Amino acid sequence: MDRLDQQIRFVGEIDRLKGVLRQTMLAGPGRRENSAEHSWHLAVMALALGEHAPPGTDIGRVTAMVLVHDLVEIDAGDLFAYADEGQQARQEAAERAAADRIFALLPPNQAAGLRGLWDEFEERRTPEARFARALDRLQPMLANLTAGGGTWKEHGITADQVLVKVRLIEDGSPTLGRCARDLVDRAVRDGLLAPGTYSPAAPPPA
Amino acid sequence: MDRLDQQIRFVGEIDRLKGVLRQTMLAGPGRRENSAEHSWHLAVMALALGEHAPPGTDIGRVTAMVLVHDLVEIDAGDLFAYADEGQQARQEAAERAAADRIFALLPPNQAAGLRGLWDEFEERRTPEARFARALDRLQPMLANLTAGGGTWKEHGITADQVLVKVRLIEDGSPTLGRCARDLVDRAVRDGLLAPGTYSPAAPPPA
Repeated sequence: MDRLDQQIRFVGEIDRLKGVLRQTMLAGPGRRENSAEHSWHLAVMALALGEHAPPGTDIGRVTAMVLVHDLVEIDAGDLFAYADEGQQARQEAAERAAADRIFALLPPNQAAGLRGLWDEFEERRTPEARFARALDRLQPMLANLTAGGGTWKEHGITADQVLVKVRLIEDGSPTLGRCARDLVDRAVRDGLLAPGTYSPAAPPPA
Repeated sequence: MDRLDQQIRFVGEIDRLKGVLRQTMLAGPGRRENSAEHSWHLAVMALALGEHAPPGTDIGRVTAMVLVHDLVEIDAGDLFAYADEGQQARQEAAERAAADRIFALLPPNQAAGLRGLWDEFEERRTPEARFARALDRLQPMLANLTAGGGTWKEHGITADQVLVKVRLIEDGSPTLGRCARDLVDRAVRDGLLAPGTYSPAAPPPA
């Protein structure tokens, strides 16, 4: 098979990500979000919010990373962010097997490049991966605020649990971390998120 | 409103693109494609097929362009590629008004940057815009092949009409243009696309 045939086969295969449903509810269409449109949202967020990444972060690399970060879900499905550790370990093994299969549809040099981006996202060691991860955590928070509580209410998630995820946002971008913390406070005050043991800050003066 | 507030508002607003339905049928989920997941597909295609753009084409720019090229549909809706000229003229006016509103949600320097990308895509004068347009035309062809004819059968589109769109693909990438022409020939031979006045080439030797 020549390079173009391999590439076209990959482009056809990834169409299946549009059928992978996430927990996130979309307020507008009133249905669950799929992982393809989620990945698009993150990529546009990379363009719109890139200035809040640490200086020197390569936003083009972040964009490419978020575009491919969920492709493994074609085989492994999506796991809710608040799943337990046993579920998360099984998911990681399934995602590695999926990465082995899906990226290898491409010609070897491209397969290595995109697989490298996926590994980088998973390992969270570079500023690009940490910023991409921050966007991936921030986006469902914004969706829950728009959807009147969304998965927080549905699964009985409390502010304590959300704040653990907010630390991953702070790790990628202190500015987006502060923004996420403000969103948690607002969600608790507005009754969209149960506080648990957390006491939100007072609202800013009007 | 500070820059971050404006950016977060934009990120929330564009969520609505997930509710804009295109004509394209998705074979897997068995439903129409929305413009957000379509934009994601084009962006990954830019990564996978970028080597077939003319030398010197900035693929990062192509990626950003396809990510935002359909945002105007939040206000203007999607128009079928084979709509008549009157419909297309009305659509263009609606899309310009939508671009004026949506990009202006961002801080002025970002609004100008993304609006510039959208104008560039529409004007089709740069190699980046021509290549982005080629991807935008190629993707629904691949979807129709996967979906047993899809919108071609549904709307009685013939190979003559598809080949007009193939010229736009050739204009962005001679290699992808040849690929698209081969796909048309295969679709006609397989009975997925009515030939109209077109005679497909003989199949390649096995």
